[in-house]
Amino acid sequence: MNYKKILEEIKIEVEPLIGIGKLADYIPELANINPNHFGIELRFIDGASYAVGDTNIPFSIQSISKVFTLTLAIKLIGNEVWKRVSVEPSGNAFNSLVQLEHENGIPRNPFINAGALVISDILISQLDHPKHQLLEFIKNISNNQNIDINKKVAQSEKENGYRNAALANMMKSFGNIKNDINEVLDLYFCMCSIEMTCSDLSEAFLLYCNHGILPKGNEEIISLSQTKRLNALMQTCGFYDEAGEFSFTVGLPGKSGVGGGIVAVLPGKFSIASWSPELNAKGNSVLSMKALELFTTKSGLSVF
Amino acid sequence: MNYKKILEEIKIEVEPLIGIGKLADYIPELANINPNHFGIELRFIDGASYAVGDTNIPFSIQSISKVFTLTLAIKLIGNEVWKRVSVEPSGNAFNSLVQLEHENGIPRNPFINAGALVISDILISQLDHPKHQLLEFIKNISNNQNIDINKKVAQSEKENGYRNAALANMMKSFGNIKNDINEVLDLYFCMCSIEMTCSDLSEAFLLYCNHGILPKGNEEIISLSQTKRLNALMQTCGFYDEAGEFSFTVGLPGKSGVGGGIVAVLPGKFSIASWSPELNAKGNSVLSMKALELFTTKSGLSVF
Amino acid sequence: MNYKKILEEIKIEVEPLIGIGKLADYIPELANINPNHFGIELRFIDGASYAVGDTNIPFSIQSISKVFTLTLAIKLIGNEVWKRVSVEPSGNAFNSLVQLEHENGIPRNPFINAGALVISDILISQLDHPKHQLLEFIKNISNNQNIDINKKVAQSEKENGYRNAALANMMKSFGNIKNDINEVLDLYFCMCSIEMTCSDLSEAFLLYCNHGILPKGNEEIISLSQTKRLNALMQTCGFYDEAGEFSFTVGLPGKSGVGGGIVAVLPGKFSIASWSPELNAKGNSVLSMKALELFTTKSGLSVF
Amino acid sequence: MNYKKILEEIKIEVEPLIGIGKLADYIPELANINPNHFGIELRFIDGASYAVGDTNIPFSIQSISKVFTLTLAIKLIGNEVWKRVSVEPSGNAFNSLVQLEHENGIPRNPFINAGALVISDILISQLDHPKHQLLEFIKNISNNQNIDINKKVAQSEKENGYRNAALANMMKSFGNIKNDINEVLDLYFCMCSIEMTCSDLSEAFLLYCNHGILPKGNEEIISLSQTKRLNALMQTCGFYDEAGEFSFTVGLPGKSGVGGGIVAVLPGKFSIASWSPELNAKGNSVLSMKALELFTTKSGLSVF
Repeated sequence: MNYKKILEEIKIEVEPLIGIGKLADYIPELANINPNHFGIELRFIDGASYAVGDTNIPFSIQSISKVFTLTLAIKLIGNEVWKRVSVEPSGNAFNSLVQLEHENGIPRNPFINAGALVISDILISQLDHPKHQLLEFIKNISNNQNIDINKKVAQSEKENGYRNAALANMMKSFGNIKNDINEVLDLYFCMCSIEMTCSDLSEAFLLYCNHGILPKGNEEIISLSQTKRLNALMQTCGFYDEAGEFSFTVGLPGKSGVGGGIVAVLPGKFSIASWSPELNAKGNSVLSMKALELFTTKSGLSVF
Repeated sequence: MNYKKILEEIKIEVEPLIGIGKLADYIPELANINPNHFGIELRFIDGASYAVGDTNIPFSIQSISKVFTLTLAIKLIGNEVWKRVSVEPSGNAFNSLVQLEHENGIPRNPFINAGALVISDILISQLDHPKHQLLEFIKNISNNQNIDINKKVAQSEKENGYRNAALANMMKSFGNIKNDINEVLDLYFCMCSIEMTCSDLSEAFLLYCNHGILPKGNEEIISLSQTKRLNALMQTCGFYDEAGEFSFTVGLPGKSGVGGGIVAVLPGKFSIASWSPELNAKGNSVLSMKALELFTTKSGLSVF
Repeated sequence: MNYKKILEEIKIEVEPLIGIGKLADYIPELANINPNHFGIELRFIDGASYAVGDTNIPFSIQSISKVFTLTLAIKLIGNEVWKRVSVEPSGNAFNSLVQLEHENGIPRNPFINAGALVISDILISQLDHPKHQLLEFIKNISNNQNIDINKKVAQSEKENGYRNAALANMMKSFGNIKNDINEVLDLYFCMCSIEMTCSDLSEAFLLYCNHGILPKGNEEIISLSQTKRLNALMQTCGFYDEAGEFSFTVGLPGKSGVGGGIVAVLPGKFSIASWSPELNAKGNSVLSMKALELFTTKSGLSVF
Repeated sequence: MNYKKILEEIKIEVEPLIGIGKLADYIPELANINPNHFGIELRFIDGASYAVGDTNIPFSIQSISKVFTLTLAIKLIGNEVWKRVSVEPSGNAFNSLVQLEHENGIPRNPFINAGALVISDILISQLDHPKHQLLEFIKNISNNQNIDINKKVAQSEKENGYRNAALANMMKSFGNIKNDINEVLDLYFCMCSIEMTCSDLSEAFLLYCNHGILPKGNEEIISLSQTKRLNALMQTCGFYDEAGEFSFTVGLPGKSGVGGGIVAVLPGKFSIASWSPELNAKGNSVLSMKALELFTTKSGLSVF
């Protein structure tokens, strides 16, 4: 198959959608981004990769970081993670407090904000320098030493993060946050503010297609069984309350962020990362959603 | 791989779990079943099949029927179905009224009871003899003319179906049931009371692994794209509020019923049906869940 | 105090509000009423009464009937009633299913629809001819033999009563409806369709100001303690999700109906009934609400 | 009537209930109180007062303070208060986040924790020295210069106040908290930690029986109309999710606190304060609830 040509066709087909979505507007750093960016990169386990558009411009990975922190937490404490956070789709918006109240402070899954806060708390308990060590971990799996936190974004997130502070306090009241709330929030806002390119993300996600092993160098990050779990979670919970729709139209496990990025994987085969800043009403990138749908249709490659 | 041997090992490993679960007890016909049954059948698109245990004893398919009625509805009216029922995981128990009230009578997905009632309503609008034609449809895809409704079970379901009557009335109040409520409930209870064997179910589900086409005879039931949608729905919504857990431990799209049956598919490869009557707290068969988990682990075959 | 003059002033002050509210529109019989009606009648225990406007035109009492059925149920089985229905404000719309689902089919109070359906069920269990005997009971306390059910309204209610059918089925699934659902709904729709005048209602409600005793003839209907309970319920739950607002602006126990009627009492002193068909967004009569507010302000008579 | 004798009878009748309830246990200062205390004081507008038991021992007034802060807020900004907090019963536990999430950060009423936090926020915006000025206000209406905050209790409240911090952050995310969250929480925890006696409380609540005017000295604190509103709120929302039960059994507007205190009023007549530390499952003092029920039964004095 001519993957380069498929990606180029996709770019032409999705670009007319620019203007339909809206930029995230809760912090100025996201609201002021040029909305015309679009990039898509496809990367196979065997090393082949295909890139079209803005695949080397770093953007705010936002919730995509939740996959990395969860991976690191699993690497550190294994299945102990699942005593603190559940694995079921939430059926609710990504920052809902209702469910926490009804379920004793145990978040529905690690990809809603509450769940990611618990994962932050775990990292703080396990690591001496959580922020630094998380960043080193991401640099390693992305094979790029230049990845960094955008401190201005982190600061803005913090100043507007009352809903996340509410979630953290709520879970603390149930005993499901062990460390100081400000420390937990600080790590959470930092991880959301990491900037990466489509190229970085497709590289990092190769481990989820490759049984938990980095193809370059063969380092095992997590076990095969743990990888299967992560992929299942991305399939059922990776797209806020649009998980069903994504599973439905794209058919791949993946994760999106309000920075406009989406990464997905076909286990055993490839990872694919797309970026375009404008979002639909559910907070997923309009162009990236469409691009991935077109890719699975045109290539015939999906899990279903 | 020696599939027969794998299935035999599985039987030995799951049988000690008999006694842990509980029989469905809301109608006498399910409460009085011999709890010691266990059967598992694996069937490949190419015709090969492997059976161990009670794979030729018919049992009440219950919610597994929701896959068949949805398939028939899609065959009849295509994407119009999705105007009447959504495609997102519910995050709630299978018969919740709460969501209906908050979402104007549109059920979260076609595999919760409310959604299946809407599908029944669609079949009644589209078919002259809905009960008969649904049964003919199932006989055809299962390649077995002896499949039938257990009328005693249907009657018991009806006598205990107040929750379903509440759901139907609720949706009628929002205009999302078009036909007479008693007719809708009658078809619903009949479809739940159909009896099939593991052998029948694995045969019928081959179409979901084979692009919507029956391998024997090459009849196209639904399109490739519609099949992908059905598989995505089974992946995210097929196991009540245990969808995440199943996706997590088994890694295959599938559907369970309170009769103790579970069917799953690996698209492009095989279907697998298991039956054992005792249920866990979420209403899924204890032995069948474990059997499928063991199968994907032992065979290494899963979507993730 | 010149009560007649106060009522006349009130009429002049509220009439400009005609046109602000909307007629109930879920059944044609309510949607086609002349919206210009307004009547108010004040009646003291000692026999004095003051009427202004359309106080002798019968209108659909709707939910005001819930006070009468509850009174009759208490008369028949006393405190046993409270095993089947709770006494707390619902904080939700009058026909919410959510609460029932979370609280095992026990309605929050007897003045929401679910609660009134349970009361209907109790009357059916206790009475040989529930419809007839309920009507006789209301005729007696109203001192008017001409009160009747509007059969056309009852039929329309039935044809549009899917939400109530959902509530009844839901409670039946929890075992909190003992009789046939259709019988329960039939009595419920009949009681809502009773027609009375402001004069009738102010007469009937005298018993709640007079320790449960009819002033004319001294018949004890319910005990002093039971009367206190009824008044407390009207205070906290009589106005759907506007109970707080009514308690706040009027300061009297009372009950409203979507026919546009409101009746209230000052225990130990008087009853007051007002009618005007146009409703606010919460389903309470715009003019009647304002009229009662003006009355307590002008007369200085309220419980607070 | 011999009020002294009635109160003495009540003491004898309620004391056998000691041991049925449980002390509040979320902070050590409340958990370690001697559970055998009981006091009750009745105070008439005309100056007469009757006291039995431990009516001069200060205890933690907790949520009773919400009446005082609301009164002060109304005194300062009048009806502007109702733009920030609603007046309807919540039908939910006193610290529910669910409602806030569904209703855009506007608390259901000023007596649930969320509502009281908004009132704290208003006081901070309006007062130069909110803590000091609130205390002066309470000293004035209680006619006792010795009333003070228990700083140890305030500190403990703070250390265990994650649920309240969640509420405050949640409302801040909706823009319904204007000041710094820590300042708002600090004032909130201080007001809950004020200690008063039954004698103080019955004195302070006289203003709610006397049209908003302090009987001693005739100072008008709030207007007649505002007083009516406060009494209506106490009637419908003063007892967490037991408001209906209290209205039902006691029939007086009032307010309870988890310190074991309850104060109630009969407008135009008297105030009555009772204290006993053991609580029922809803957080209301077992003996105080029973004492007030007995008082209205024995005296025949209630609003209904």
